Amino acid sequence: MTNNTSRVGKTHPTIIVGEIGLKFVGVKLGILGLGTVGTGTVQLLQDSAGRHPLLQDIEIYRVGVRSLDKNRAVKLPESVLITDLEAIVNDPQVEIVVEVMGGLEPARSLILKAIENGKHVVTANKAVISRFGAEIFTAANQAGVYVMLEAAVGGGIPVIQPLKQSLSVNCIHTVTGIVNGTTNYILTRMQTEGSDFSDVLTDAQRLGYAEADPTADIDGLDAADKIAILASLAFDGRIKLQDVYCEGIRQVSKTDIAYAEKLGFVIKLLAIANKVNPPAISIRVHPTLVPKAHPLASINGVYNAILVEGEPIGQVMFFGPGAGAGATASAVASDILNLAATLKASTTTPNPLLTCRHQDYCQIAPIEELVTRFYARFLTKDQPGVIGKLGTCFGNYGVSLESVVQTGFQGELAEIVVVTHDVREGDFRQALAEIHTLEAVDSIPSLLRVL
Amino acid sequence: MTNNTSRVGKTHPTIIVGEIGLKFVGVKLGILGLGTVGTGTVQLLQDSAGRHPLLQDIEIYRVGVRSLDKNRAVKLPESVLITDLEAIVNDPQVEIVVEVMGGLEPARSLILKAIENGKHVVTANKAVISRFGAEIFTAANQAGVYVMLEAAVGGGIPVIQPLKQSLSVNCIHTVTGIVNGTTNYILTRMQTEGSDFSDVLTDAQRLGYAEADPTADIDGLDAADKIAILASLAFDGRIKLQDVYCEGIRQVSKTDIAYAEKLGFVIKLLAIANKVNPPAISIRVHPTLVPKAHPLASINGVYNAILVEGEPIGQVMFFGPGAGAGATASAVASDILNLAATLKASTTTPNPLLTCRHQDYCQIAPIEELVTRFYARFLTKDQPGVIGKLGTCFGNYGVSLESVVQTGFQGELAEIVVVTHDVREGDFRQALAEIHTLEAVDSIPSLLRVL
Repeated sequence: MTNNTSRVGKTHPTIIVGEIGLKFVGVKLGILGLGTVGTGTVQLLQDSAGRHPLLQDIEIYRVGVRSLDKNRAVKLPESVLITDLEAIVNDPQVEIVVEVMGGLEPARSLILKAIENGKHVVTANKAVISRFGAEIFTAANQAGVYVMLEAAVGGGIPVIQPLKQSLSVNCIHTVTGIVNGTTNYILTRMQTEGSDFSDVLTDAQRLGYAEADPTADIDGLDAADKIAILASLAFDGRIKLQDVYCEGIRQVSKTDIAYAEKLGFVIKLLAIANKVNPPAISIRVHPTLVPKAHPLASINGVYNAILVEGEPIGQVMFFGPGAGAGATASAVASDILNLAATLKASTTTPNPLLTCRHQDYCQIAPIEELVTRFYARFLTKDQPGVIGKLGTCFGNYGVSLESVVQTGFQGELAEIVVVTHDVREGDFRQALAEIHTLEAVDSIPSLLRVL
Repeated sequence: MTNNTSRVGKTHPTIIVGEIGLKFVGVKLGILGLGTVGTGTVQLLQDSAGRHPLLQDIEIYRVGVRSLDKNRAVKLPESVLITDLEAIVNDPQVEIVVEVMGGLEPARSLILKAIENGKHVVTANKAVISRFGAEIFTAANQAGVYVMLEAAVGGGIPVIQPLKQSLSVNCIHTVTGIVNGTTNYILTRMQTEGSDFSDVLTDAQRLGYAEADPTADIDGLDAADKIAILASLAFDGRIKLQDVYCEGIRQVSKTDIAYAEKLGFVIKLLAIANKVNPPAISIRVHPTLVPKAHPLASINGVYNAILVEGEPIGQVMFFGPGAGAGATASAVASDILNLAATLKASTTTPNPLLTCRHQDYCQIAPIEELVTRFYARFLTKDQPGVIGKLGTCFGNYGVSLESVVQTGFQGELAEIVVVTHDVREGDFRQALAEIHTLEAVDSIPSLLRVL
């Protein structure tokens, strides 16, 4: 916190209600958006039986929507639904603004205005946080308010709060996540059915598991947003989204999945942030060969999982539904609950476990400096000595091979698959450049990293 | 909280240190015990670089040990190590008592005395909490202090805090855990090696994965302690330990593991609490056939995992090391951090997300009312019509069969394995009693529940 004008200590008035006596006036929410997540959140808050009793002190005071005429799955008093979103973030009665509208603008501006007005913010908006987090957290720290984002990563999985609290006593060295349900669903189906990427994508779109424009998911952009957020918490520094190296799953073929299977791996789109040359971290999203015995290998379908490794804890993994109205509403409501508890405590000092304390940017190692194993598939002329020539090129750049498989033929071309030992990515790419020049080598259709 | 004399609001003095200026006086810990967990906790706190900065405000003020002469893996000033544990819980300087000595007494009495003296408590003692939780939490609520127990279940896995906070916005209906590393290690080895229970146990004892007296682990008592704690948080009610139905893994044979494998299952010692006839819950520990595709089926070795199911979140699972100095120290330190943050906030009202608010006891359904699938293995005379006779007995009590396997022979006896559909346990047991009387049935060596 950079000043002392914390809004955390706002006190709540007590009023007389009828003859019942004293009643605590609820914490007033202004919810921006009533789409899938907004509706799920309202449903949860309206049905508080069997949940934390503090939820009963929360009042859905305003819900901002685009149109008042639309049929809604939830019933709200007429005075609650309004179309003027600016009015919500400017309303002095609103204590917590819940941004579940998505998109960059006006979400960003409304969040900033809410902060400026001293309101706490709950958001499910990974795109805004990963792009404008620095601006938003700086503003929040100046205003003495909290910005909560449990729903931005991993749907309902509690991972943001554990990273801020329980796990923060560890020196975290790696965060590895399957954080995009759509791509995990597609890869799982390619794996189990032996199908091609494009066929499964078309079917996933038909079934509603992939969007009509699937770019954000399958090119890894959504996962990049999320690993940027996770890394900023795990490594206590800000991340520029453009520093996240990003490869999607378009180039993953059923051939590679079959080879990986034979070699004891499954292919997953992983989002990874780890310390490489401390204080530098590597942060990246790419399809990865994961050993079958690894905890992330058995995360299938639309599920998400985040593996956190540190000292002294070792490995912990969080698993759950990465999307969906209910799961995301659970995360949004848990942030609201957390803020309501803080507001009730009437504390005058901010809770250091709720603030995002990072102010400096993380130093990011370029992808060339990554040290990893690689899987590569080559198509070569079917002539003697090709493997020897590949081996020589690799040797020139210090790349040693863990396994070499030559089984298939594609037409007249032989297919050679290699898995390397750990190698600096820059060195490996130089070796590949040299291999490209070999007369015997037709093409290198696949290049994947190995966990 | 039952009174208003919260100690949460204790303020910290500020003193002048040399010429450096103002220094916040650290939160003073009194640690009871310097065994594996105590040592791990001290090591973590002494090496605070790269961890949450608030840890630097924590002072290891006293550590109570049995003997001052023992060689220790950690260095502590002479004034810190003392043998008078009573003196620690009575010392007005101590703000947080960290009980990591284990055992029932004097741990229980020291915890109660610390509470009486207005100190917050962190404990890793599942045995004390599961047996004396009611007494301890009542005392803590009266004294306005917190009792934190993240380390009591699942080692380093953050599961207690998520159950109190994030997940508490859900209506939880089931908690299922692999919460004992020793038995999971034994079952995993039996599975992968095809070995007998007693051989693996002996080897596990030799390797230090099982105690010389393994009763608490292999008879499920340790898991019972843990599920009692998890259930009390998930279902917001107290649990009498004697109400937890408990079967260990002594009767699990390699024969059953092989049959289970063939039928698509692995056998795990599960600790389960779920709503059966709400508000009644069923709470139990027993070896269980788990479908291979289930998230808990791939939890192997000494790892623990806790699966929480509720509405609207669906399934979330927490996975990690269930024991060990580092993992447990991480959990203990996270509780200390949580309390330190609360102490710093100088709040005058207790944080409703840290208190154990349950006061009433959960209503527990007797095991006979459980509705579950069963796996049973019969040895019968090798004569025609035996399966028909079994089927008739089952039919008399409304037990329908999902699959019947007759493959093996044990000497002159035929081996028949059945898996039932969901059935009330009481009805199934009546059917078994009748089957026992059949002349053709020699014995029923195995009876296991199926998830």
